[in-house]
Amino acid sequence: MTEHDPDFRPLPMPTPESFRYEERDRVGIITLDRPDRYNALTFQVYRELTDFFTVIDRRSLDPEGARALVLQGEGKAFCSGGDVEDIITRLFERDLDGLLRFTRMTGELIHSMRRCKTPIVTSIKKVAAGAGAVMALASDLRVMGKKSFFAFLFPQVGLSGADMGASWLLPRVVGMGHASEILLLGDRVYAERCAEIGLANRVIDDSPDAGGPAAVDAAAFELAKAIAQKPHFATRMTKTMLQQEMDMGFTDAIEAEAQAQAICMQYPDFREANDAWLAKRDPNWK
Amino acid sequence: MTEHDPDFRPLPMPTPESFRYEERDRVGIITLDRPDRYNALTFQVYRELTDFFTVIDRRSLDPEGARALVLQGEGKAFCSGGDVEDIITRLFERDLDGLLRFTRMTGELIHSMRRCKTPIVTSIKKVAAGAGAVMALASDLRVMGKKSFFAFLFPQVGLSGADMGASWLLPRVVGMGHASEILLLGDRVYAERCAEIGLANRVIDDSPDAGGPAAVDAAAFELAKAIAQKPHFATRMTKTMLQQEMDMGFTDAIEAEAQAQAICMQYPDFREANDAWLAKRDPNWK
Amino acid sequence: MTEHDPDFRPLPMPTPESFRYEERDRVGIITLDRPDRYNALTFQVYRELTDFFTVIDRRSLDPEGARALVLQGEGKAFCSGGDVEDIITRLFERDLDGLLRFTRMTGELIHSMRRCKTPIVTSIKKVAAGAGAVMALASDLRVMGKKSFFAFLFPQVGLSGADMGASWLLPRVVGMGHASEILLLGDRVYAERCAEIGLANRVIDDSPDAGGPAAVDAAAFELAKAIAQKPHFATRMTKTMLQQEMDMGFTDAIEAEAQAQAICMQYPDFREANDAWLAKRDPNWK
Repeated sequence: MTEHDPDFRPLPMPTPESFRYEERDRVGIITLDRPDRYNALTFQVYRELTDFFTVIDRRSLDPEGARALVLQGEGKAFCSGGDVEDIITRLFERDLDGLLRFTRMTGELIHSMRRCKTPIVTSIKKVAAGAGAVMALASDLRVMGKKSFFAFLFPQVGLSGADMGASWLLPRVVGMGHASEILLLGDRVYAERCAEIGLANRVIDDSPDAGGPAAVDAAAFELAKAIAQKPHFATRMTKTMLQQEMDMGFTDAIEAEAQAQAICMQYPDFREANDAWLAKRDPNWK
Repeated sequence: MTEHDPDFRPLPMPTPESFRYEERDRVGIITLDRPDRYNALTFQVYRELTDFFTVIDRRSLDPEGARALVLQGEGKAFCSGGDVEDIITRLFERDLDGLLRFTRMTGELIHSMRRCKTPIVTSIKKVAAGAGAVMALASDLRVMGKKSFFAFLFPQVGLSGADMGASWLLPRVVGMGHASEILLLGDRVYAERCAEIGLANRVIDDSPDAGGPAAVDAAAFELAKAIAQKPHFATRMTKTMLQQEMDMGFTDAIEAEAQAQAICMQYPDFREANDAWLAKRDPNWK
Repeated sequence: MTEHDPDFRPLPMPTPESFRYEERDRVGIITLDRPDRYNALTFQVYRELTDFFTVIDRRSLDPEGARALVLQGEGKAFCSGGDVEDIITRLFERDLDGLLRFTRMTGELIHSMRRCKTPIVTSIKKVAAGAGAVMALASDLRVMGKKSFFAFLFPQVGLSGADMGASWLLPRVVGMGHASEILLLGDRVYAERCAEIGLANRVIDDSPDAGGPAAVDAAAFELAKAIAQKPHFATRMTKTMLQQEMDMGFTDAIEAEAQAQAICMQYPDFREANDAWLAKRDPNWK
């Protein structure tokens, strides 16, 4: 129980079946765990991950809950997309209704990532392909290894770049010109190019001397930890508003932000910042 | 007739009067053909081009139709905008109603370019000015010669940067800060700067040693050809969704993409990609 | 009185109490004037500035009115945000209703800057922090000193990045990826990085040899003067449409631009541009 909500009961640490999860320094680390398949996604991962972002976001309000998330892959790669055997091959057996159930389920995963108010940092080692590319795109921040790349490879498999929200998200991250090129051609986009166009927030040396792929996960963790140390109530509001205001007109957004910030000003972290500043000490966020 | 549509009859190759058109390697090449005027636009070009994008897009569904388009200019320049004699001078004779008929007609051209589901690559040699700049902006990809430039020169002629959709399109390609600068000042923006801000997809050496201006058209053709070799049904969906989702909220976009991709998954190209992959051969798109 | 509007009476030069204002070469210069506090904002500045943009924009239609604005700070810095003593400390005394009145008032300032049809160039010396960062973001063009920085420092004071429209504006200027990083972390973003991501239009050498901080104000003035020398009627339309069309669908925007440009074509500046061009002289805008 917290002093704010008498009905509050701490949520148990979730124990997912199809991927790993641990918490460290208030950072929740989600690790896709099929390294022999470059962490290709299965139906089970899709479904479990979708629900997981909702649960973990609720738990982030707990006194000990994670206040930022890292999404990463076991081994040397992040994620190669939908598994060819578990998913792609089996889609050919489905009729339109069955296919639509699949595409809605995958879209639901992206929706739950954007509605998760706890920020998500994706660590991109080697490859973020297909659905893996869209998941990385839907997270808030992207850390890439120097030799890693995005591959929105839909054209190579006869599909549209409009997959799981990619053609909504990508133009809003890199602009319509780059997004058109990337989604029409489906070519690899390497880390340094991603940094130039605004798709990567950090590019990390992942040479053996610098620690190899693990250096990328470590940098993503440090970035998530920096966010976890910010005032969490306000952080959640920031992500919420960034996402919602993409769909708002300017005048409505001004009013929405006035309300959002007035709420944050009533939360104890605002006064704590001032008290800490006056006492020349670090603030102690709620 | 194709096996898909018993009512289908191949469309004849169009023979425009005010510009040239040819098809090569499944790429349709539209060539503005008034090189002595830097391919300045006439009333006739505006009108014919507007209808042309609709016709050629329908024809792109034909077994032999073009699956990507190049928009280029004859000679050493792309397009200097509306012709001073044919258009600008004659606009002074018009009342508000007549002017509105003109601005609606020019806007209709841009509308038909964005609604044309077949991707358009513009080859920018020397200059893309005024209406020529907006046409290049409304295409999907832009290939520029190293010494070429955009000139949204509306302020120089006493007009607004809100011309033919420019003030809607430009902020979505380069962001509001750059767009405000470009449309308020109307200065030239050279190719390398265009590449930095996301307005150019490729910058091509157009020095005499590298082949001169023709090298730019050749590079635009190669880029269009790369798109033409992708699965066309899915390509059309990608462009359609990229455009439509600029006007959609996130939640609606997720559902729209689920529907779009489910449709693409029923189209034979999706299975063909898988069959080709298993057989270790190149796919043979429908 | 002008020949266009018999009811027209020139507006007097406004004499603000809480900041300075002067006009030179058709450029209106707004100078925040609390240099000992890095021009921190007071309640009075917020309120007076909000009304001021409306008044000065109306006056820009006067024969001698300013046709572009510079927003700058006295001394070596631009603006450090809301004053700790005058504002922050006093906010702790307010209830939710009182806080909402404050956040609505600050949002109203940003609203009035974006609705002011006269373009605003902000000169960023040393620091644009908190509300100062949002004001700079809401102006049309940003000129930064080489050693200056933006600081959306809301997380440091326990608040949300959704302040005064920042989380609506920033993604539309720099894209969602950079905006998420900047608003979630609240770190300083230095001038050269701002230029890379599209937040700065110009970066000016502000070393002592180059003239120090004053060089930044001078460059902002020159940029505003360049805008002031453009045809003002069309300039106002350009800013208006850039802002409005952020909230418009594509089809509606095409029609809105057709109307906007038809109006500009009836304004005498359009013919003047042609006459000047034929006579090989500079145009003389209305």
